[in-house]
Amino acid sequence: MGLNLMPVPAKVMQTEGQFRLSDSFKVAVKGDVSDKLYHGVTRTLRRLSRNTGLFFPQGTITAESTVDTTDFIVQCNRPGELVLHEDESYQITVSPQVITLTAETDIGALHGLQTFLQLVDADSNGYFIPALKIEDQPRFPWRGLLIDAGRHFIPVDVIKRNLDGMAAVKMNVFHWHLTEDQGFRVECKTFPKLHELGSDGFYYTQEQIKDVINYAAARGIRVVPEFDMPGHTTSWFVGYPELASAPGPYQISRKWGIHDPVMDPAREEVYQFLDDFFKEMCGLFPDKYMHIGGDENNGKHWSANPEIQTFMKANDIPDNHALQSYFNRRVQKILAKYGKKMVGWDEIFHSDLPKDIVIHSWRGRQSLYESAVQGYPGILSNGYYIDLIQSTDFHYLNDPIPENAPLKEREKKLILGGEATMWSEFVSAETIDSRIWPRTAAIAERLWSPGHVKNVEDMYRRLEIVSLQLERLGLTHEKNYLMMLRRLTNNTDITALKTLVDVLEPVKIYTRGEQRYYTQFSPLTRVVDAARPDAKVARHFRNLVDSLLTNNGNGNGQAQSVKNYLTRWKENHERLRMTIKKAPVLKEIESISEDLSVTASIALESFKYLENQQKADSTWIASSLEKLKNAKAPRGQTELMIIPAVEKLVRVLGEGGN
Amino acid sequence: MGLNLMPVPAKVMQTEGQFRLSDSFKVAVKGDVSDKLYHGVTRTLRRLSRNTGLFFPQGTITAESTVDTTDFIVQCNRPGELVLHEDESYQITVSPQVITLTAETDIGALHGLQTFLQLVDADSNGYFIPALKIEDQPRFPWRGLLIDAGRHFIPVDVIKRNLDGMAAVKMNVFHWHLTEDQGFRVECKTFPKLHELGSDGFYYTQEQIKDVINYAAARGIRVVPEFDMPGHTTSWFVGYPELASAPGPYQISRKWGIHDPVMDPAREEVYQFLDDFFKEMCGLFPDKYMHIGGDENNGKHWSANPEIQTFMKANDIPDNHALQSYFNRRVQKILAKYGKKMVGWDEIFHSDLPKDIVIHSWRGRQSLYESAVQGYPGILSNGYYIDLIQSTDFHYLNDPIPENAPLKEREKKLILGGEATMWSEFVSAETIDSRIWPRTAAIAERLWSPGHVKNVEDMYRRLEIVSLQLERLGLTHEKNYLMMLRRLTNNTDITALKTLVDVLEPVKIYTRGEQRYYTQFSPLTRVVDAARPDAKVARHFRNLVDSLLTNNGNGNGQAQSVKNYLTRWKENHERLRMTIKKAPVLKEIESISEDLSVTASIALESFKYLENQQKADSTWIASSLEKLKNAKAPRGQTELMIIPAVEKLVRVLGEGGN
Repeated sequence: MGLNLMPVPAKVMQTEGQFRLSDSFKVAVKGDVSDKLYHGVTRTLRRLSRNTGLFFPQGTITAESTVDTTDFIVQCNRPGELVLHEDESYQITVSPQVITLTAETDIGALHGLQTFLQLVDADSNGYFIPALKIEDQPRFPWRGLLIDAGRHFIPVDVIKRNLDGMAAVKMNVFHWHLTEDQGFRVECKTFPKLHELGSDGFYYTQEQIKDVINYAAARGIRVVPEFDMPGHTTSWFVGYPELASAPGPYQISRKWGIHDPVMDPAREEVYQFLDDFFKEMCGLFPDKYMHIGGDENNGKHWSANPEIQTFMKANDIPDNHALQSYFNRRVQKILAKYGKKMVGWDEIFHSDLPKDIVIHSWRGRQSLYESAVQGYPGILSNGYYIDLIQSTDFHYLNDPIPENAPLKEREKKLILGGEATMWSEFVSAETIDSRIWPRTAAIAERLWSPGHVKNVEDMYRRLEIVSLQLERLGLTHEKNYLMMLRRLTNNTDITALKTLVDVLEPVKIYTRGEQRYYTQFSPLTRVVDAARPDAKVARHFRNLVDSLLTNNGNGNGQAQSVKNYLTRWKENHERLRMTIKKAPVLKEIESISEDLSVTASIALESFKYLENQQKADSTWIASSLEKLKNAKAPRGQTELMIIPAVEKLVRVLGEGGN
Repeated sequence: MGLNLMPVPAKVMQTEGQFRLSDSFKVAVKGDVSDKLYHGVTRTLRRLSRNTGLFFPQGTITAESTVDTTDFIVQCNRPGELVLHEDESYQITVSPQVITLTAETDIGALHGLQTFLQLVDADSNGYFIPALKIEDQPRFPWRGLLIDAGRHFIPVDVIKRNLDGMAAVKMNVFHWHLTEDQGFRVECKTFPKLHELGSDGFYYTQEQIKDVINYAAARGIRVVPEFDMPGHTTSWFVGYPELASAPGPYQISRKWGIHDPVMDPAREEVYQFLDDFFKEMCGLFPDKYMHIGGDENNGKHWSANPEIQTFMKANDIPDNHALQSYFNRRVQKILAKYGKKMVGWDEIFHSDLPKDIVIHSWRGRQSLYESAVQGYPGILSNGYYIDLIQSTDFHYLNDPIPENAPLKEREKKLILGGEATMWSEFVSAETIDSRIWPRTAAIAERLWSPGHVKNVEDMYRRLEIVSLQLERLGLTHEKNYLMMLRRLTNNTDITALKTLVDVLEPVKIYTRGEQRYYTQFSPLTRVVDAARPDAKVARHFRNLVDSLLTNNGNGNGQAQSVKNYLTRWKENHERLRMTIKKAPVLKEIESISEDLSVTASIALESFKYLENQQKADSTWIASSLEKLKNAKAPRGQTELMIIPAVEKLVRVLGEGGN
């Protein structure tokens, strides 16, 4: 029987029978039990009750209320610490009589509770857990998600539901990107003009930050804050222009891309400011690590500032890269004074820095391995940039240490894991979940499960199930889709629009910002925002076509399914045209809608050739391929995801099969 | 041309032409402009941009950034105060060249901005506002929504999105029911054991409360807190049993209904506690009014306490009602000391109390009018209990002062308005929006629009449009529906379940709690929770049947539409049976699903009699009506909403038309 676990555990052994759930189901918690674990068990019981509709006898589970039962026994040896390399392992044994979860730490037990929930299945007799034995622990100790709250502010409730999502797939680091050219998002008591003038009023209070940290900790998740510097700091300079390398005044930036403003590394007052600043922030954020960004400084303001040039000459600093290294070393010393280890992007790497810093690689494995060879730990984000709207399998197969990695065992241990990065140029509170989920669950599996777990088809099968489990936690990646279509059509009949958008995806990589000028105020409610990465219907269609062509076009059920899709698409444009008449925002995708019909018509024609056992004449094939090529052009920053599959149909079926 | 405004303005005059919206659309704000109004205009511009996909040139509107434009001019005379009877009027003039919104206060201007957004329409050329002139002001000054955060905790983000919904339909009082037997939900610094021991950790911090008050104020909404006493106070006594009339210890209550625990009105220490308590809370909540509840005290613990009995004799207090009046007078004096006017339910009424208190009537108009005759102001909630799952038109036609109200003009002025009440025994953060919206928009119209506006059909037409506008604000009444069905079916194929639940409603009034024992921990994720009040599909069907029968069954298009519904329902059970096999939580509605098929079959048979111009034999009619009667029985606390319409079909069509 196939299990639907994601991430796949290190070891699973299925046995005979099932534990049947009933209204009398009880849980007992034993060992050295923390409040964190009691809360986790209570949440698990409530989630189980909500998922099954069963009324359980227990309410809030506490030391006082825990009962002796042989239904579900949770046994924990000690409270865990929220630090790198803490024991996160757990074991589950399910027999028809009893479920046992054991773990060294409460953090491991929390992971086990998530597995327990994913194990629940149903048949006509009711809900059950299949009998089995699981022994599980993570492959990498740093499994993160970055959320950029700088470019667009992301409210606390959105952060919290994403923490729930992370916990569900056993991620353990929330990397909170808190400051950007476009916004300074933290209440700072030492320098209040940072948030007062740098945020438009959209910032997290310290009480909210503590609340998020507690919420994350209760789920076994560390919070690593990022204060990006010396670049990406325009919003700091609105209140404190004296930190900058060029004279002010500054205003919050509203556009995207690399900005010129940068801190002045030549002035002692800047380091004094950062010392006072980090003193406060290192107290606010309890994690041992502090991320200082360090990326994308173009150095223009440094080169243009004569005092900085003088400073460089006086201190034998040959170039801007070296100047930034100097800045980093100063910052690292401040952080060390306050008990923190520094994390930064590839750019910060310099052999003068102590070996407890962490290199965060957007550049790629090569860059990561180079630092590892020199003894520096690192984490990978290259290949996990979920803002770039790439397919899930691309991210899934991106292994931080593939089998052929040119690293010694000692160096491999320095590769701590990775982080999915949700940069927020093109997301709002309404759309961010649909960019993070469900794809990030596949990244979570890459970082948790053994390296040999890489069956893409099985990953996609489980991903669709996990996606709905994530939705139950409050994530909006599924439910906001139809809501956005309703807004776009300006009424409830979204059928035709949905048929189109089901096979559209936003343009990839950095194309969106290149095709249209966006600011922080631009609407994120158009078709491109409703369209989702890795469009499921398009993927199903592509798989169906591949499978049909493997049978040379003769898979009968498959042919019918393909033709059903095509017929719906062929007829869709006429209906959508009616919708567009009342919804002008849809005009930008009118021609792509027409192209869907054209594409489908071509594909249906190629079936005719197959069915008549004819070869299409080469003119028809050429003109069809030409039309398909045109249909690939993005419109409204979206693209049709079924063209390559139809090209294959034309090539193969137009030849009367081959 | 029909406008879709809700609430309907006091005066509308449509003129010729339209103001066309474009990417260059700008707004200017003039007069004595508050930050509140700048923020409101900025929000309006962003909402307009999101709704239309248009990119506007303006970002955040401030005194510095406002421009001179003749697109949209907002003119305000003075900042309003968030007090009863503040001027809330506004005027809008739209010509093809310019839109003008004028208002005496920023609060009136905020209402006008909501109207402006509701006016936006579209045709194949783009978005526009029809030319017109509106003069508008509210009929009643107190238009409230009560949310009970005591029985189930309602998180801040849920409160905020409901404040957005309220503002969209021009409601102006958020009545925050903060304490209950089941939970004390406010951080109290004077007596911290109130929230520490009385809330399971689910309470609002004072920073969160201030945030909500500011959020409401920015939308022209007053926040009236309620601390229900002397009954409904079990959660207070967990930390402070010395306040109670019976010895402790107490625990947070988990069940619903009227509880025995009650404050001891005979002990001076209780009043000292309340004095200190209200001193803090009157500082925290700026509104002039403070609600003390005062309902549902059964007096058992008073009657059983000898010291209270002695106190009553010593003070000539004849009975428990008089004792509660004594308690209320003492509390009222404390509130007066801290500058607050008291609000309470009907029970608090006593002619010893000063005439600035407000009587909040759950009992009904009669009770309200009696106090008005004696000079006491009042607000109506009887008829607006949205937790009881009654139909929208029932609430809509419930006028606080119908034409025949037996009141003098002076007394009518004392009827301040009303409040919809969202008691939370059976709602969670996930379902609460679907109980509040869209029905509350009709109540908002009742309290804002002139009394003669009461066309039910037109109300329903506009309600469906407004419902989607409310969804755009983040409310989840639409989008959580399919999510809940997905959870129930345990997969994505929800078609058959949706067909059934579309015509189900939860049982009404207090039936749900009578049919099954619920606690605070019971799951609210079953079919009854997914089902929504005033089921739209069922209502459409009933209207269709009525309209068909008006034509004696000969409305041809109507007959076909009715038969299409019936055919789908007849065939639905076979499909849903397959779903139920994999989703045991649905077993409880299996027989009601079967009854939907049976009902539809009967209705289709009656069409046959009509079409054959036959009379059905009386045995068939009798046995059909018997089956229909049985199909009315609730299952899973839900009921089929199409039976009466089918009964009509059987009676009329079974007679071969009549």
